[in-house]
Formats: sequence, structure tokens, C-alpha cells
Amino acid sequence: MREPLNQARATTGSSRRALSAAPEGTVRRPARRPSPRGENLARALRCIADGDGEVSRADISARTALNRSTSGSLVDELISAGLVREVGIKVRSTAGRPPTSLALVDAGPAGLGIEVNVDHLATCVVDLAGNPRYRRVVTADQRGRDPRDVLRSAMALGAAAVHEAEEIGLEPQGMTLAVPGLVDVDRARVVLAPNLGWHDLTVGAQLDPVELGLPPDAVVTLENEANCAALSERRLLRSRTSFLYVHAGIGVGSALVLRGELHRGRNGWSGEVGHLTVEHDGPACGCGGRGCLEQYAGQEAVLRAAGLPSPVPGTSTGPGAVSELVKERVDGGDPRMLEAVGRAGRAVGLAVAQALNLLDIELVVLGGIYYDLGPLILPVVRAEVASRYAGARWAPPRIVTAVHGLDAPALGAARSVVQRIIDDPSDWLDAADPHRR
Amino acid sequence: MREPLNQARATTGSSRRALSAAPEGTVRRPARRPSPRGENLARALRCIADGDGEVSRADISARTALNRSTSGSLVDELISAGLVREVGIKVRSTAGRPPTSLALVDAGPAGLGIEVNVDHLATCVVDLAGNPRYRRVVTADQRGRDPRDVLRSAMALGAAAVHEAEEIGLEPQGMTLAVPGLVDVDRARVVLAPNLGWHDLTVGAQLDPVELGLPPDAVVTLENEANCAALSERRLLRSRTSFLYVHAGIGVGSALVLRGELHRGRNGWSGEVGHLTVEHDGPACGCGGRGCLEQYAGQEAVLRAAGLPSPVPGTSTGPGAVSELVKERVDGGDPRMLEAVGRAGRAVGLAVAQALNLLDIELVVLGGIYYDLGPLILPVVRAEVASRYAGARWAPPRIVTAVHGLDAPALGAARSVVQRIIDDPSDWLDAADPHRR
Repeated sequence: MREPLNQARATTGSSRRALSAAPEGTVRRPARRPSPRGENLARALRCIADGDGEVSRADISARTALNRSTSGSLVDELISAGLVREVGIKVRSTAGRPPTSLALVDAGPAGLGIEVNVDHLATCVVDLAGNPRYRRVVTADQRGRDPRDVLRSAMALGAAAVHEAEEIGLEPQGMTLAVPGLVDVDRARVVLAPNLGWHDLTVGAQLDPVELGLPPDAVVTLENEANCAALSERRLLRSRTSFLYVHAGIGVGSALVLRGELHRGRNGWSGEVGHLTVEHDGPACGCGGRGCLEQYAGQEAVLRAAGLPSPVPGTSTGPGAVSELVKERVDGGDPRMLEAVGRAGRAVGLAVAQALNLLDIELVVLGGIYYDLGPLILPVVRAEVASRYAGARWAPPRIVTAVHGLDAPALGAARSVVQRIIDDPSDWLDAADPHRR
Repeated sequence: MREPLNQARATTGSSRRALSAAPEGTVRRPARRPSPRGENLARALRCIADGDGEVSRADISARTALNRSTSGSLVDELISAGLVREVGIKVRSTAGRPPTSLALVDAGPAGLGIEVNVDHLATCVVDLAGNPRYRRVVTADQRGRDPRDVLRSAMALGAAAVHEAEEIGLEPQGMTLAVPGLVDVDRARVVLAPNLGWHDLTVGAQLDPVELGLPPDAVVTLENEANCAALSERRLLRSRTSFLYVHAGIGVGSALVLRGELHRGRNGWSGEVGHLTVEHDGPACGCGGRGCLEQYAGQEAVLRAAGLPSPVPGTSTGPGAVSELVKERVDGGDPRMLEAVGRAGRAVGLAVAQALNLLDIELVVLGGIYYDLGPLILPVVRAEVASRYAGARWAPPRIVTAVHGLDAPALGAARSVVQRIIDDPSDWLDAADPHRR
């Protein structure tokens, strides 16, 4: 199936070519307006995606308010295009011919996510349903390396991921690169990634889809790491919940999701919770400010405050290792580590309270290293929020840990690729059926 | 025109009865889904409202993409219902019969806004076009008074405003009460207004439309003062700009407008910028927190920091008087006042930077006392934002003073009433033409 698709796309030209979608108030939309049929296909496909293999043709008709024959023909089209499959008999049927359940395919179209971070590189491939099918993390400090070398390593990991994915019948159709900092999506430029020491760095030329083994006109795009991480919270997105997702590693980023849609802001730079001021005269930060949250609640800040160097000699570094170390020390009763974790929790609580006072949202999700440190940090965060959020007494917010940990950015990045197909399957269908073009 | 309308409404029952619209992510929408014709009427009416007397029938057809005969009949219906008037010849026409310009009526349907604040009560009546036609401010400290007495005073001022408005041919159709604090719109309850010393106060029973001289089923509703104030920025709302509106008096509130729509949050409590933390160990605040912005940048905090009591003996208090006093002292070179204003500006800048880091919005509007103190405070705010907003170097935000000062909340509250008619004129038309019911 791969080759004909590639050929078809090569001839359709650059309409799907990437590095072009402008930041918006909410998550990016397809550049062109889909046709009414395209919109109906997208509605049917979204029903199937949200149904987790538990949706029938009749359900789609009911949920989309399209008549049965229309929705049936949409489903047939999605099946013949290789996006949807029949998965057997629905058990909850009671009479008549048992309806067949529909699900997204678990082979074929897929998404590749790559994360470049301060102390690791990660890749993830998801199938069309967004399920992770391949993951790899390489732990290595990226600071001090030439950014072009870092990107070269990331691209090599990405190409390896595509190769491995193909071995299991997946065909990644695009790549999103997650970077911890302010990114200019339009110009494929990293504006400022303070913890990597990168700024004003145009990376577009290095993100060649062909080098990754993707179709030549595949969409490759940059995105903020925390924005990607928030996309890993599938249940919250589906239920159109409003939440603040805080993702901590060495830096602390966040994403603001309003009614299930990413609020990206004017430049795509929303959610810089790591640069909220905790102490107005606190330590200088790489962003140019003072006393930013990152200086209290990032993983290196916690180690520093506990009197440990980072990386800790003789300890494996990278995702997971730091939180293991922190937990060990806390369990061992190390007073400096206890104080360092408390200080981090109070700082996170103060920053989260700012967001709640401004936004009045119902839920805060703590991810990244806080995924592992949840039991240690959550009570402190909640207490600080209770004392600083003006509405806390009347509408106490929920503050919880994320479903995924430090693997969330690469996972969400990969999901953003397949989400584009689900949001607008018309391109895919046009490419699958050359007669319709 | 008044009596038949009232009768018509009395028989239509409670569909327009107020104190019921739930807070949402954006500004409240009509409870019921308007009909397609209702939606087209609303589109045509909005065209006319946005056209400032410079829009013709042909313009409406062009801007709504409705054909000329449909849009012409919509306009005729709006004229006969008394919402729209013809205002003479458009000069920019070149050939054929000169088209007539359309405008909203300047008599008839109107909106009443009442503001209850710490050191003053204010009323405003606007015509359908949102132009203020009557205003009154009564300067008097409301702290220590029984909240029921305060509301009684406010209602009496409101009734006087309705009476005066009727003298000039206006017929207020509803009232919005602006209160400085967290309000529960659904239950007509002031949850917390720390500077008034009010909390958990249900006010619905005291807001009787008949007592105000309004139609018995008129919509009367509570709203946060800063949310109302933001609605006074007509040009920004029309151009669907995203901005943070900061409104300072004794307290400091704010409203968050995303693409021209108020982001109210889950409970309607968004924009509590006054309770952002400036110093984590700063002075205690009425909200229960410490070091909140209000403790540095509210008008009494500025006077206190300058070593002055509030109210200042021998000085008239209330809106405008404090900023006059501050300016005089600054002009006179009073070093304590200079430092107090600088401290307020730095605190506002710090809080604004938090909002920008979280939201990545393009514009911050400073209102209330900052309207008068703009030249003193703006440079300090801008400098602080430049050092604390991570994206400042690449996308410097605009920080400006508001179009209106301390009169903005009552004005915006009044506009929210007429905006409901413009957003959904169907009710009005149904009431105007009993045959259509």
C-alpha cells in the first residue's frame, strides 16, 4: 500500500507540505476548508476513533445525525481507504443481524514523534488509534553539543523508528518534533530553549521527511514539548475538559487546554509556567527573568537544593533515574532532600495558583518527573494552592498526576500526526483513490 | 411602545427570566438555540451595530452572504420592530439611487448597568448602540454597611437612572450589577468580595426588576466588575482581539478576553489578577493568600505605601480623587509617593508577565485608576514585563491604558444588557409582533 500512496502524494504537490501551519488560539486546523463530504467523513472517523472499537454503523448514524445510508457509505469509504476496519460482533446488540463493530486500523497509517530534550532524546510511533507501538529513549546530556549534531542524532533515531515501525506493518505519515522551549512553528525555528542553550535556531532544513523514511510530502513540524505532552491525555481531550498540564524535566513547561483544545496563543508560546515568578528576587533564569519556577521545581534544581550535583556521579541519569534517586533519598529520611522536594512542591503550588486565579479551570495535571514524584509532591502542591487560589474554598480544583510520565512528549507528538489524518481524512482518501482527484 | 411590549412579555412567561445563565468558557450565549431566521436577524443586526451608521442594505447582503431580498426583508423587520433606523444618504455611493445608511435606534431599547464598589456606587444607561446616555457616580465608602443597605442604595440609584432614561426616550430592558469579586451568576450570589467584606451573600431577591422600573421579566444579572469593565473596550471586542484587561480601584481585578470573547472560566471567576502572588511571604490579603497584587497596586495600597491614610483627611475621595492626589504628590517630587507608584508598577508588571507567560496574548489594557496614572505607571510596568516575560524579546506585547477609566464597569454592565438584544433579537421581535408568536 505504501508505494502507490507515496506516488499519489508526490503528484498532488505541496498542499500537505508542512512547516506552514500558523499558531492559533486553539490547536491548528487544516489549511483549506474541507468539503461538506470531507467534513462528514471526518465526523464519522472521529466517532470511530472515540469509540475504542465499540461503535457500529448505527451508532455513527445516531451520533452524527446523518442518515443510515449516508453514514454507511462514509464508513465503506473509510474502510476501503484503509483507515477503518471491522472488528467483529458487538455484544450489546439484542435483535436482528448483529451489527459489526468498527475500529481504526492497527496497521498502515501511523505517526512519528521525536523529542529533543536536555538529558535525553526519545522517539515514539503510534498507530492511527494513537496507541504507542514503538518507543525508544536515549539518555545523554545534549547541552554543549552543536544543535545541528543534536538534530542529526534525533533524525537518525527517527529514521530507525520508522524502519522498526515498517517491520510491524506501520507506515508513519508525518513527524512532530517536540522541543522544550518557545518554537516558531511557521518558520520551523526554535526561538528560545533556555535549558538547551538554543535560541533563534532555524531547523527546518534539517527536518527532511525523506531522510526519516517518510513520504516526501509528509508533514514534519516543530512543537513545544509540554504542548505535545498534553496531547497524551487522551481521555481529557475526548471529554473536552479544560486543564493545565504541567510537564517537568530539567525545565518546567505547561500546556493550557481549554475545552479539549490546546490554547497555543498568539505565537504558540502559551503555557510557559516554568517562567512564572516564584520569588521576585530569586536566582537568575535562562529566560532572562529571576526566581522562575524552573529554578525551584525542575529536576536539577531539586538535586541542587538537596546538595547533589547533576548528574549525580555513579548514578544513571535521564528520565526516571532522577525521580528514583529523589524517592530513595526521601525514603531514607535525607532532610535536605525532604526540604528540596517541599520547596519544589510549594513553588509548583504557587505557580499553579496563579494559573487558577487567572483562568478558573477545573483541573491541573502534573506530568514529567512529577508523574513519579506524585505521592511526595501532590499534598504540598494542593496545600499551597488552597492558600493562594482565591476560589479554593468554594471550588477546590482537582490536582492530579498525569497518565504518562517523561514519555508523554514523544507520545503526544506522534499522536498529533495521526490526529491530522483523523481531523481531515480527505487528503488521505484523495491520495488513496486517484480517480477522485 | 413600552406598555404593549411589557404585556407581550408578561404573557411569554419566563423564557427571558434571568439569574440563570451558567458561566461558560466564553461569554454567555442565549439559553435556547435561535431559529435559522433568528440567526440571520442577529447577523444582520450585528452588521448594523458594527457599522456605526455607515452600513447600507447592500453592505449587509455582502457581509452576511445573504441575498438582497432576504437581507432587505430582515432589515425591514428590524426597522419595524424598533431596533434599527435609517439615517440618511451614504456619501460613498457613486451611481444609481443613493443607498440609505442604517443604524441602531437611539431611542427605545436600552441597558442599565449598576456598579457596587468599595468607595462608590455608579449607574449608567446606554442606548442600543452602546452609547452612554446617562451616568451617575455616588462617592461613599460602602465598607461596614450592611450589604442589604448597600444593595438598597444601589437599587434606588438604578431606579433613578431608569426614570431619567425614560425622560430622554430610552427604555432600559435589563440590568447588570457589577461587583468587585467572585460571583455565582447562576445563584445570583456574591461568593467573595474581599474588599467589601462580603462573602456567600445571595442577592437575587433584592434585584427586583419591577423595583427598578424595568419590565417584570427583564433580565437582571450579577457580573464581576472587571469582566464588565472589559466590555467597555468596544473596538477591541469588535476586532476580536485577545487581551487582558486589568481594572484597579481599591481592589485589582482583570478580565481575560480571547478573540473578542470573555473567557469566564468554570465558575465565572477567571481574571483574578489581583490575587496573583507578587511576594510569596508578603502581607496577608482578604482572599486568604499572602503578597497578592492588590496589596501593592490597589489605590489604598499605594496611599498606604506613601504614608498617607485612606481616605486622606480633607481630600475628596472616590473615583478620580485618589489618582489626582497621587499625581499631585508625584509632580511635587514626594519621594515616598514616587516609590509607592514605582512599587505598584513593578507589582503590576510582575503579575502581567505571569499572564503573558501563561497565555501568550498580544495586548494588556490597564484601566480603573491606571487609566489616570498611565503616564506614571506604564514605563515601569513595561520594563518589568520585558524582564519577566520569556517571549518579550521576540514578541514584545503591547501594554496600553484603557479607553475608559473608573466608569468602565457600569458602562460595560449596561452594554452587556443591550448586547443580549443584539446577539439574539428574536425575543424582542416576538414580543413586538404578537402575531408571530
